Amino acid sequence: MDLVALRRDVHAHPEPAFCEVRTAATVLAHLRELPVEVRTGVAAMRREGVPAYPDEATLQDFADRAVASGADAADVRRFATEGTAIVADLAGRRPGPVWALRFDMDALPVTEADDPAHAPAANGFRSRYEGLMHACGHDGHVAIGLALARRLADRDFPGTVRFLFQPAEEGGRGARAMLAADAVAGVDRFLAVHLGLDLPATTVAAGITGIFATTKMRARFTGVASHAAAAPEDGRNALLAAATAVLGIHGLPRFSAADTRVNVGTLHAGGNVNIVPAVAELTCEARSKDGAVNADLTERIKQVLCGAAQAQGVAVEIEETGGSTSLNCDDELLDAVLAAAAASGLGERAVRTHEMGGSDDASLFAEAVQRAGGLATYTVVGGGNPAPHHNPYFDVDEAALPVAVDVLEALVRQITRTDDNT
Amino acid sequence: MDLVALRRDVHAHPEPAFCEVRTAATVLAHLRELPVEVRTGVAAMRREGVPAYPDEATLQDFADRAVASGADAADVRRFATEGTAIVADLAGRRPGPVWALRFDMDALPVTEADDPAHAPAANGFRSRYEGLMHACGHDGHVAIGLALARRLADRDFPGTVRFLFQPAEEGGRGARAMLAADAVAGVDRFLAVHLGLDLPATTVAAGITGIFATTKMRARFTGVASHAAAAPEDGRNALLAAATAVLGIHGLPRFSAADTRVNVGTLHAGGNVNIVPAVAELTCEARSKDGAVNADLTERIKQVLCGAAQAQGVAVEIEETGGSTSLNCDDELLDAVLAAAAASGLGERAVRTHEMGGSDDASLFAEAVQRAGGLATYTVVGGGNPAPHHNPYFDVDEAALPVAVDVLEALVRQITRTDDNT
Amino acid sequence: MDLVALRRDVHAHPEPAFCEVRTAATVLAHLRELPVEVRTGVAAMRREGVPAYPDEATLQDFADRAVASGADAADVRRFATEGTAIVADLAGRRPGPVWALRFDMDALPVTEADDPAHAPAANGFRSRYEGLMHACGHDGHVAIGLALARRLADRDFPGTVRFLFQPAEEGGRGARAMLAADAVAGVDRFLAVHLGLDLPATTVAAGITGIFATTKMRARFTGVASHAAAAPEDGRNALLAAATAVLGIHGLPRFSAADTRVNVGTLHAGGNVNIVPAVAELTCEARSKDGAVNADLTERIKQVLCGAAQAQGVAVEIEETGGSTSLNCDDELLDAVLAAAAASGLGERAVRTHEMGGSDDASLFAEAVQRAGGLATYTVVGGGNPAPHHNPYFDVDEAALPVAVDVLEALVRQITRTDDNT
Amino acid sequence: MDLVALRRDVHAHPEPAFCEVRTAATVLAHLRELPVEVRTGVAAMRREGVPAYPDEATLQDFADRAVASGADAADVRRFATEGTAIVADLAGRRPGPVWALRFDMDALPVTEADDPAHAPAANGFRSRYEGLMHACGHDGHVAIGLALARRLADRDFPGTVRFLFQPAEEGGRGARAMLAADAVAGVDRFLAVHLGLDLPATTVAAGITGIFATTKMRARFTGVASHAAAAPEDGRNALLAAATAVLGIHGLPRFSAADTRVNVGTLHAGGNVNIVPAVAELTCEARSKDGAVNADLTERIKQVLCGAAQAQGVAVEIEETGGSTSLNCDDELLDAVLAAAAASGLGERAVRTHEMGGSDDASLFAEAVQRAGGLATYTVVGGGNPAPHHNPYFDVDEAALPVAVDVLEALVRQITRTDDNT
Repeated sequence: MDLVALRRDVHAHPEPAFCEVRTAATVLAHLRELPVEVRTGVAAMRREGVPAYPDEATLQDFADRAVASGADAADVRRFATEGTAIVADLAGRRPGPVWALRFDMDALPVTEADDPAHAPAANGFRSRYEGLMHACGHDGHVAIGLALARRLADRDFPGTVRFLFQPAEEGGRGARAMLAADAVAGVDRFLAVHLGLDLPATTVAAGITGIFATTKMRARFTGVASHAAAAPEDGRNALLAAATAVLGIHGLPRFSAADTRVNVGTLHAGGNVNIVPAVAELTCEARSKDGAVNADLTERIKQVLCGAAQAQGVAVEIEETGGSTSLNCDDELLDAVLAAAAASGLGERAVRTHEMGGSDDASLFAEAVQRAGGLATYTVVGGGNPAPHHNPYFDVDEAALPVAVDVLEALVRQITRTDDNT
Repeated sequence: MDLVALRRDVHAHPEPAFCEVRTAATVLAHLRELPVEVRTGVAAMRREGVPAYPDEATLQDFADRAVASGADAADVRRFATEGTAIVADLAGRRPGPVWALRFDMDALPVTEADDPAHAPAANGFRSRYEGLMHACGHDGHVAIGLALARRLADRDFPGTVRFLFQPAEEGGRGARAMLAADAVAGVDRFLAVHLGLDLPATTVAAGITGIFATTKMRARFTGVASHAAAAPEDGRNALLAAATAVLGIHGLPRFSAADTRVNVGTLHAGGNVNIVPAVAELTCEARSKDGAVNADLTERIKQVLCGAAQAQGVAVEIEETGGSTSLNCDDELLDAVLAAAAASGLGERAVRTHEMGGSDDASLFAEAVQRAGGLATYTVVGGGNPAPHHNPYFDVDEAALPVAVDVLEALVRQITRTDDNT
Repeated sequence: MDLVALRRDVHAHPEPAFCEVRTAATVLAHLRELPVEVRTGVAAMRREGVPAYPDEATLQDFADRAVASGADAADVRRFATEGTAIVADLAGRRPGPVWALRFDMDALPVTEADDPAHAPAANGFRSRYEGLMHACGHDGHVAIGLALARRLADRDFPGTVRFLFQPAEEGGRGARAMLAADAVAGVDRFLAVHLGLDLPATTVAAGITGIFATTKMRARFTGVASHAAAAPEDGRNALLAAATAVLGIHGLPRFSAADTRVNVGTLHAGGNVNIVPAVAELTCEARSKDGAVNADLTERIKQVLCGAAQAQGVAVEIEETGGSTSLNCDDELLDAVLAAAAASGLGERAVRTHEMGGSDDASLFAEAVQRAGGLATYTVVGGGNPAPHHNPYFDVDEAALPVAVDVLEALVRQITRTDDNT
Repeated sequence: MDLVALRRDVHAHPEPAFCEVRTAATVLAHLRELPVEVRTGVAAMRREGVPAYPDEATLQDFADRAVASGADAADVRRFATEGTAIVADLAGRRPGPVWALRFDMDALPVTEADDPAHAPAANGFRSRYEGLMHACGHDGHVAIGLALARRLADRDFPGTVRFLFQPAEEGGRGARAMLAADAVAGVDRFLAVHLGLDLPATTVAAGITGIFATTKMRARFTGVASHAAAAPEDGRNALLAAATAVLGIHGLPRFSAADTRVNVGTLHAGGNVNIVPAVAELTCEARSKDGAVNADLTERIKQVLCGAAQAQGVAVEIEETGGSTSLNCDDELLDAVLAAAAASGLGERAVRTHEMGGSDDASLFAEAVQRAGGLATYTVVGGGNPAPHHNPYFDVDEAALPVAVDVLEALVRQITRTDDNT
């Protein structure tokens, strides 16, 4: 399997949260050739209760695109209908631990740079879906997961490896939906792998520190429309409420107790220039490196939203649309990853932990596994990124891909010393 | 011609500014049967320089819908390509003044009520284009214009009647585009007719007072996106600038010199909850019953927009997308309309002027005609509206339609006394 | 009595609302020489329940200044203790109506221009109390009232004239306090006189239209202080709430139903640059030419204040500190004033009504008198003002003073024709 | 000398920045009894160029109070005229390093709790100056400095000790003014001592980490006043600009690069409820644990202030009124303080460093000394504070005072072992 070609194919077809129908069909096509037990649909995730799940028209649109670009129509239809999560168990020939390895699949609403200086543009695999982009490396994660599955197809390892191909990491909804289907039941060791995060290419950090707990919210203000000239006083202005909330949310205090973040990521309001806007909808997020502070900040955001609505005499509905916790990597697992990195010849290019400046709902898998007595870590494979995550110029040095596969293979096979070194 | 059926057909197919391809095709189909000289394309309007003209994909979408609902494909294609304005001259058999009568055709981005209490819903002619609605009576205007043309097809009147089927009244761009094609060159008397405006059904006001001069603007803030957790300080937040501007615009002073209005009608910003928004776009408007005050207010809005951008370190582009002036109805024409109303048997149901709480770019036609020495008025035909203009429950009492046709016919034919009264 | 000298003396010693101790002592000194029955203290006004009544230290400060500048110490002490309102009845020798004439005494917190171009500065009667100024002509009103009383000391007129020397017109608290002491009980005809209002000098308007109903409010936000660096999250920021409210109040809609105004006149918050502000206090006002709209606007301001407080998790106390209604002048009284103006030789320099762009709590006296069956008006004597009211360069053409006295004298004496004209 | 009595006397007479005339007179009275060389006036600090230096009336007010409470009139007059800084050199009998020890003297605009639960209130030394309070422990610092000077009066130590009695630490202006008079020229070792900072009583931290670099600013918006009803459009609203800036400043981004703080500590605007506010003045601050980030944040605050002014068409003047840098304690000096703490019997009650959540312009002294090749530290003596710094209930456990004196004495005398331990 051509790791680079696979990554580029996924990169060129970026699909947003829960719309990863082509990506899932690609994953499934590969898995069918391997000795794995696959679960999809309700056995892999639960759609019910997922906030802001895409509507049918949107899913159909991505399904149409997927089929048009060569995906299997039946598989695409299934994923569009049942959800895009895939859980695949690959049993080793010897007894051993149950591993769960997480590979996320979703892309972002970023318009990819169309500039020869940007490798995907220069090499013909720039996003074919205008306005969407794999700007966080998940295209690479998918490729790594599938390559690893092929490597381990000889089943010459102890225990079992469960591959979690997860939708909707961005926004923090996918892990929750998979947990609702017991995706990590019985798992002893959880590991998520992430490319990038400002580490140089072909380096590895066995774990991370400083991951942000986060809460994603959507607020919908509903007022009363009126003609802006004939009867402005009959209106109740949802946009004024939302604009007030935007300023209020950004103005919430820094916390001495822990690092925090706030962001209002989107705002859409109104219908016509001469109508008092009756509806305004925004999405926002709280974050903190401390879970309790994140919870406090979340409550304060809600208070700002409610106060802004009250001031304008409009209603507001607030929905928590996603979120994740902080994550503490287990020492035993950090040791194991470091040993695997050493076995992969990384030597000094492996470090124990890396400070992370973001969030990932892999933390919810980790928490579930740890609560059940298992171990968890979040391993970073440096991607030599030329631009920050979520940026139109984000890219991954493709040399990082086999490194990730090597380390994960060594970890699962429990190779702690390479023959080269003897 | 069935006036009501025509109005209902137009009502069911509401098309927004400059996308009135089906409506224009309908108008053209009717006009072809009449002894009129028709101008379309560059002879009727100029697309160049029109701010925020719809893009090709949008025009194609409405063209597709129009053809799907039975419109002539060739006509639709022409209007989608060249613009939807139509100027039709009907020459009377006797010498006399050149009239220009304005009938606007565009609909609004309002979702029509789907409630049996709303007549269009109960009677099967609710909007077939979800999210768009004839919520300002222009469907009726189109029907009135065509019915009047049929009535006058005998050419038994002095002078010439020029029918102006105008796109894009809402937002104030259509009249300007038609003026660029000299649509009222040589006109002696200009009259726009409007249904509704809170007058009871089957009443008429010969003119209006208190029309607002207005300026419509679009502002686009462009900052820098960044990951909201990993590097918020690298972002330059376009949404924060826009939200600040929304509050600043609404906070501009009332003027003692003249009544004013401000509105930010729409705001769209950002792409994802966890990205600092790099782009925010809003539309807003100034209004005043005094043109100079409107100009002052417009400048202050621009100042607010620039200050908000500066504060956040983002760029802002401001475009005036439309506008209109105030309008003074000429006494001589008011007398003539009142006489025509009397001739139509309206008696006490006709008043000289009505206070208007809005704007209409018919004022630009009026101004042009008056500047050239002609006369102008803006005649209101009461529509017995169950709900305000621009409201999802807006409707027009269809009994108003023939009243409007009667009065306009009497006006053009210069009938000042009905036989019934002799 | 030297009308000009008296006005200049009062002008030089401007005293704010309820602190008019020197002014009242000056008035009382003059009245003592006349055949009037004087009421002061609880017989003239009620201090209890007056919002934001000055504290003792402030009153003492103005009392000290008054005595230092030559006022009678005992009178000053009495007015500082009991309130500064004075009601003086001057009975004519013949039966007739009971008139109440209102003369307000308070000054404004404006720093007077110190510029030779400003007559009070050039002529040595600029404010001696830095930061305070008679910038609304009340200095002239006091002089007019006392001059009129002297003229009428012969008691050669029908009925009775009640002179109301009112404190605290600015902010709308004085009339209310005097009404609580039944200051206009038994009054048949009420008239307030005002200099200025953009009318040319030595002109008169018998009444006014378009007076604003108004509500004055004070809001106090109380949060929690904390060290801005060590524990910002422990604070609850009263200033952020107040700033949000300032923007929200100014952003309230214009009303199509009637002209409105809003203003946040003052804001004081916080104690030190490095402490999260725990307290913020603002004063604001609503106005409308329609009383019901003013009431609606007042409620919306309160809603904005409450919403802003809620958003920041702070408390807010809102107090209505003053206000006044609109005022409809009675035709019969307008006729009488016009006749008196004619008798005073004003001829074409008198008009029936003038459009007023402000508020005056004389409207409360007027309302009380009208409710009891009497008549009321608000007469303007043009002051040829070189600058707007409340401006540091405001001044009154002193030629206006005797004109006002003449007209009022003719009105009370019921002289409707001058000998000059026979 | 009674350390506690001295501290309580200073506590009862809190004086704000640069107004510490009574405190300085108290210090001077004590120093006169000791073998020190004292510098005051321009030899100790430079008034010129100090931003927002108190005006003469304020200085006179505190001078009057000081004399009224028993301070020496001549000394008070001198400090009110020349500035309150005192530099006193005490030379040891043996050669050795030149120490500079900083003791700050100013109080805060906080109203002290008047509650029996608050020790100063219960024990009769609550602030006699209403609205001012020693809420940061500087009263204790003064007492410690003077007690230390008395202890060292035997001159039995190597080197020289320079006592820096500093005004205006709060707001960050005093150190700068003293540096302008070369207050630390020739100094080898600089140490500031601070009580409190959440450490338990009678503990010591030899140094601190995480001190914030900070910039204090004052912004004055100047617009145009106008009557809020008669001519609101003639005004240019300084309060609206300031309120917009308040929200904008608090809404500046968190930085991933380093912890930050922002605060708008005060805002004062407007004169009367019915006048459009022409003037608004605010004070605000930026902070960051990284000096470059603080500089960036400072620039962004200025940008927000300018943008807000531009939006409202008002002028803004921005002045940096104070500030300080971050501070890195030198290892060698930390060792020495720890040794002195051990010698004072603190044992395990001494720690190497403490995380500080604030700023102190002692950092400017430290920076100057370090730049010249010397060493610096900032030593914390735990105060067992019942409430946070700057809080009305802040207090210091007086048992901390002798501990501080002991440690500093041991440090200067270079006693590294106590007899008790032998």
